[in-house]
Amino acid sequence: MRRAMAEADVGDDVFGEDPTVNELQKFAADMFGMEAALYVSTGTMSNLIAVMVHCRERGDEMIVGDLSHIHIYEQGGSAQLAGVHSVTVTTLGDGTFDLDQLISKIRHGYPNSHYPRSRLICVENTHNVQGGRVLPLSFLQELRSVADKFGLAVHMDGARVMNAAVALGVQPSVILQHCHSVSVCLSKGLGAPVGTMLGGSKDFIQRAVRARKALGGGMRQLGVLAAAGKIALSDMIGRLEEDHRNTRSFAQGLLQCDPPLYQVDQTTVETNIVRFRLRDSQMSPAEFCERMAGVDEEEVKALGQGVQVLMFPHFGGSVRAVWHLDISEEDTQLAILKAQFVAQQHKRNSMRTA
Amino acid sequence: MRRAMAEADVGDDVFGEDPTVNELQKFAADMFGMEAALYVSTGTMSNLIAVMVHCRERGDEMIVGDLSHIHIYEQGGSAQLAGVHSVTVTTLGDGTFDLDQLISKIRHGYPNSHYPRSRLICVENTHNVQGGRVLPLSFLQELRSVADKFGLAVHMDGARVMNAAVALGVQPSVILQHCHSVSVCLSKGLGAPVGTMLGGSKDFIQRAVRARKALGGGMRQLGVLAAAGKIALSDMIGRLEEDHRNTRSFAQGLLQCDPPLYQVDQTTVETNIVRFRLRDSQMSPAEFCERMAGVDEEEVKALGQGVQVLMFPHFGGSVRAVWHLDISEEDTQLAILKAQFVAQQHKRNSMRTA
Amino acid sequence: MRRAMAEADVGDDVFGEDPTVNELQKFAADMFGMEAALYVSTGTMSNLIAVMVHCRERGDEMIVGDLSHIHIYEQGGSAQLAGVHSVTVTTLGDGTFDLDQLISKIRHGYPNSHYPRSRLICVENTHNVQGGRVLPLSFLQELRSVADKFGLAVHMDGARVMNAAVALGVQPSVILQHCHSVSVCLSKGLGAPVGTMLGGSKDFIQRAVRARKALGGGMRQLGVLAAAGKIALSDMIGRLEEDHRNTRSFAQGLLQCDPPLYQVDQTTVETNIVRFRLRDSQMSPAEFCERMAGVDEEEVKALGQGVQVLMFPHFGGSVRAVWHLDISEEDTQLAILKAQFVAQQHKRNSMRTA
Amino acid sequence: MRRAMAEADVGDDVFGEDPTVNELQKFAADMFGMEAALYVSTGTMSNLIAVMVHCRERGDEMIVGDLSHIHIYEQGGSAQLAGVHSVTVTTLGDGTFDLDQLISKIRHGYPNSHYPRSRLICVENTHNVQGGRVLPLSFLQELRSVADKFGLAVHMDGARVMNAAVALGVQPSVILQHCHSVSVCLSKGLGAPVGTMLGGSKDFIQRAVRARKALGGGMRQLGVLAAAGKIALSDMIGRLEEDHRNTRSFAQGLLQCDPPLYQVDQTTVETNIVRFRLRDSQMSPAEFCERMAGVDEEEVKALGQGVQVLMFPHFGGSVRAVWHLDISEEDTQLAILKAQFVAQQHKRNSMRTA
Repeated sequence: MRRAMAEADVGDDVFGEDPTVNELQKFAADMFGMEAALYVSTGTMSNLIAVMVHCRERGDEMIVGDLSHIHIYEQGGSAQLAGVHSVTVTTLGDGTFDLDQLISKIRHGYPNSHYPRSRLICVENTHNVQGGRVLPLSFLQELRSVADKFGLAVHMDGARVMNAAVALGVQPSVILQHCHSVSVCLSKGLGAPVGTMLGGSKDFIQRAVRARKALGGGMRQLGVLAAAGKIALSDMIGRLEEDHRNTRSFAQGLLQCDPPLYQVDQTTVETNIVRFRLRDSQMSPAEFCERMAGVDEEEVKALGQGVQVLMFPHFGGSVRAVWHLDISEEDTQLAILKAQFVAQQHKRNSMRTA
Repeated sequence: MRRAMAEADVGDDVFGEDPTVNELQKFAADMFGMEAALYVSTGTMSNLIAVMVHCRERGDEMIVGDLSHIHIYEQGGSAQLAGVHSVTVTTLGDGTFDLDQLISKIRHGYPNSHYPRSRLICVENTHNVQGGRVLPLSFLQELRSVADKFGLAVHMDGARVMNAAVALGVQPSVILQHCHSVSVCLSKGLGAPVGTMLGGSKDFIQRAVRARKALGGGMRQLGVLAAAGKIALSDMIGRLEEDHRNTRSFAQGLLQCDPPLYQVDQTTVETNIVRFRLRDSQMSPAEFCERMAGVDEEEVKALGQGVQVLMFPHFGGSVRAVWHLDISEEDTQLAILKAQFVAQQHKRNSMRTA
Repeated sequence: MRRAMAEADVGDDVFGEDPTVNELQKFAADMFGMEAALYVSTGTMSNLIAVMVHCRERGDEMIVGDLSHIHIYEQGGSAQLAGVHSVTVTTLGDGTFDLDQLISKIRHGYPNSHYPRSRLICVENTHNVQGGRVLPLSFLQELRSVADKFGLAVHMDGARVMNAAVALGVQPSVILQHCHSVSVCLSKGLGAPVGTMLGGSKDFIQRAVRARKALGGGMRQLGVLAAAGKIALSDMIGRLEEDHRNTRSFAQGLLQCDPPLYQVDQTTVETNIVRFRLRDSQMSPAEFCERMAGVDEEEVKALGQGVQVLMFPHFGGSVRAVWHLDISEEDTQLAILKAQFVAQQHKRNSMRTA
Repeated sequence: MRRAMAEADVGDDVFGEDPTVNELQKFAADMFGMEAALYVSTGTMSNLIAVMVHCRERGDEMIVGDLSHIHIYEQGGSAQLAGVHSVTVTTLGDGTFDLDQLISKIRHGYPNSHYPRSRLICVENTHNVQGGRVLPLSFLQELRSVADKFGLAVHMDGARVMNAAVALGVQPSVILQHCHSVSVCLSKGLGAPVGTMLGGSKDFIQRAVRARKALGGGMRQLGVLAAAGKIALSDMIGRLEEDHRNTRSFAQGLLQCDPPLYQVDQTTVETNIVRFRLRDSQMSPAEFCERMAGVDEEEVKALGQGVQVLMFPHFGGSVRAVWHLDISEEDTQLAILKAQFVAQQHKRNSMRTA
């Protein structure tokens, strides 16, 4: 991928003249089953552009899940920069939301001047906070029919939609047919250093070019990045299945640890994210993550080596682990060993303390 | 009140020279137990100014109840005009919210650039959508201590806070000591034609003057309106107790109707709003409100006169009725008679149909 | 006017049910020769609403005179609250601007994403900073044809457009036929305590109602104010001619003062504003205004009474005086006497000092 | 440079862990003589971030040259996204502006609520529209003392400030000592494919990180781009002198053309941009640029080859040519030959037509 970057044909993308970028954009649009696509430097910008284009008049409002990345992790940019008000629906455990609740949040009284105008529904697939859950196709289909009925647009924050496609065993376009626009991340599992593809109709993308420029996202010689993006989209999707397999192995490994420190609901492990809890309240998620990341002599003696594993404490007292390009099957087995070791060490320490 | 308006001393309030306005502002500040107060033309503007002053840097965020007036009925102005992002907490049946949920919505990770900065909590007292419920003083006290702990401001949308004070039998300042700012409506129950008083610290009000000007709310010869406002604040609060009494009478009257069409939880009738449901799903809230507002020959014959009562269908299939200055005890008795008549007529019609 | 206010029929204007307001709005629309009109509490809000409605998509831009009220005195609300970028044209001495310069500021390259989209031209009539100058009808006609050619809207900040109509001896609609929208102030010369009428097409006003609500300008029982507004529009325009006559008398009076302290270009005195300079740099405009406002014993002896006259230092070292409802012909004569006295006193003092 | 990109050490810059980025940022800060620096993907974003950080409260205003890139070519993002109002000063021929005019645009009356609060002055160095003019150090020094006097910040859009440093023969920090913040472009003359360095105080850069994130400019594995940026800053500045030499040669070459079609003011050619006019109004700038870019048989016969030269029509009927990394001395000589050829061909064609 780095080689492709070093050898890329470049031009000035501000004038739409970078051939590598143009090729990537065409490729992505075809893959998404959409009319057009645009290279954007980050997922946050891509989502923000989508909000700006769908909600383009003052007083437009969007409906978004209360645990979605857009609502929680993007600094409130939709309001801060675009002046778009949000109402939330409750994100359910599988990343969907209740459609009746959704309908109740649509402003039926427009042009009643007390209300903003509902314009956009945002979904996230796979759902990050909910542990990489894949939105069911039937949910998307029903959601779209609600959106159509009320004249709303559907944007998918599909940073990991390729994981969803692999998990469902369908082409991305089968998922994306239910959306008016989508953001797809080229980094993360797909391995490009930076970049997100924003897909939509021709008119949408034309307006997105303007929004990207206003935000300062209109880069000149993008070809070097686009070259990597092209490889991400064309060659890297197949390998996501490995991540999913490794994630499942790890979840299973956790359950087999003795003593049984880890609590995992395997049915929720659908893609490359696993969330689990510690059965012993004596160890906090933060402390656990610290032990997984650190190495002591006892470990080196027990395992024959030090194994460092990066995980993060997550919502509601859980721990969250994510698989990507740089984590192999072997790494996964080592991580299980380490988790096993931490469980045993914790037991020993507890007994000593008691 | 109209006479006071016609005879008011006026000056140019843009230069702070309207004596009637200045007097009203001083009076309100004293009453609220706050350093200063400002005449603002509407409650929506007053709330918006409070948001603008408390959240004055780009990227500031507010926390607000999901059924609050600010979140639902003010066209999303906080985001649309002030660029302030909102996260919501669930408004409970009594208008309060769960403080643990509140704490979970505060952005603890600042300056983590994924997050906005939490700055403001908004409460509503009495709570409109929840039927004029009075926020308990203990809730406000605990809320304020959470706010203090995390360095947040508390703004009260106190459009009807005078009703709360009357219901609790305390001075307004006893309630408002827990808030950094408050909006108090001079119209509605207090009977002034227009106007809201915004209270806060001196610094807050100085900044509010600027925000009001930017929004185009800096009127010149305000004295005519302020004269009415002064009477509203000084002479009209006592009479709110009548509204509450009439509201309770009406709720009781509904329960005594035969046939028993109406379902009311009397414990929720705390001020001048009553919400009730119809026990017979054959009559929709909209249809009921239409019958209460209309008059037919049968009614004139039965009641000796036509009685028109204005009510509105409300959240979750209920009906909502509100008392104010222009509705007397006698009117209230007539409204009960009308409700009784509608219940009987409905029974007759149902039997005929069946 | 106060009596009309005290006796006005009122209703809830938030529901469009205030008969006095509705009557005023109809009256104003007819007078302006426009489809509809809306009562707005201030001129600043009315201008801001016009900007919000004309420039309703993100990235819209307006073109405005660099000495216009909107650009200088409205706290930059167009950018601050509505996110609308401004480019300026040079305001000429007569309040107009050069149309070639205007054309050069229109963004011809749209949808070139470097540029905002030009949407709106704002003019001011009469022009405040330029001393109440009346925009020539021929200028407005040519301006409108430029606007039409490039698909731009024309908004007139016509706070004092009634003065322009009186000065030109035409109906307001003759001026306003060249504009898509207009703000007309009911206070100032027309004597209402507050209020501005915003006129435009039906669609424009429908959108304006929403913008007004978002800004918090949607008042409830407006009738009390509208009653005064109606009188302002129907009965007070005739009397503006008096203001103009008094203003001209004063300008002439200044020129006849001996010693000749005052420098006035009479040809620029077209309505109710006069700007003049002091020929003696020993007296600053600020000092002069202070003397006109103050009274000393010498004056009482010389004039038989004390005369207080309020004027303000103005752009470029000039002084500005404005006539309105409360300044009679007699007041004007007294003001001339005072100016004469100040000139003589200044001469005496200068001689003493020298 | 591409090799450096292919071999760069990378980490996740969202967590501040990309070593190549950190090294570049440290290097740039030292070079600028500022406390800190931040990698930003484009100059437009970098300028917008600077505006957002300096003008961080609602109602802040900036003062900017009317021909500056920020005001003309950045889609009005300062107002559109950041809600910051602009007032302009007249950009003079050498890229400076009159400091008395500047002072007259500062809002002296704050907190008078009619006015925004002046916060920021933006300068551009070298000045793009004015033909790459270098701001004199004395101008910057005086400007800064005005800024200090009124408590304003100075931001330099220094996209080409390295050209200014080379032209003045000083270190960049000698120029930048007069500024609170600066944007320096890594592409253009310095040859990196993308990127801009934003410099300022530590507090400024900390806030800039947040603004960058909100805009969606917080990229993850930036190292690949930063590697090129590092080379741009450390190795490429020396070569700017070549661009300047070539630009001067070209200007001279134009003047020596026979027939004398080209009018150039050599004293304005200070860096890598030359603007010139055509003495014959029969040939429009657009037509001239087309001829320079195209090749016909006559040219191939005359010059022994086809020479394609890209130039653009510019403000006020001039033509603008820019030198950068990919244009050698030889290319420059060819461009002169081509210009000579076009002048002769034009003369022949004119004679034929006449």
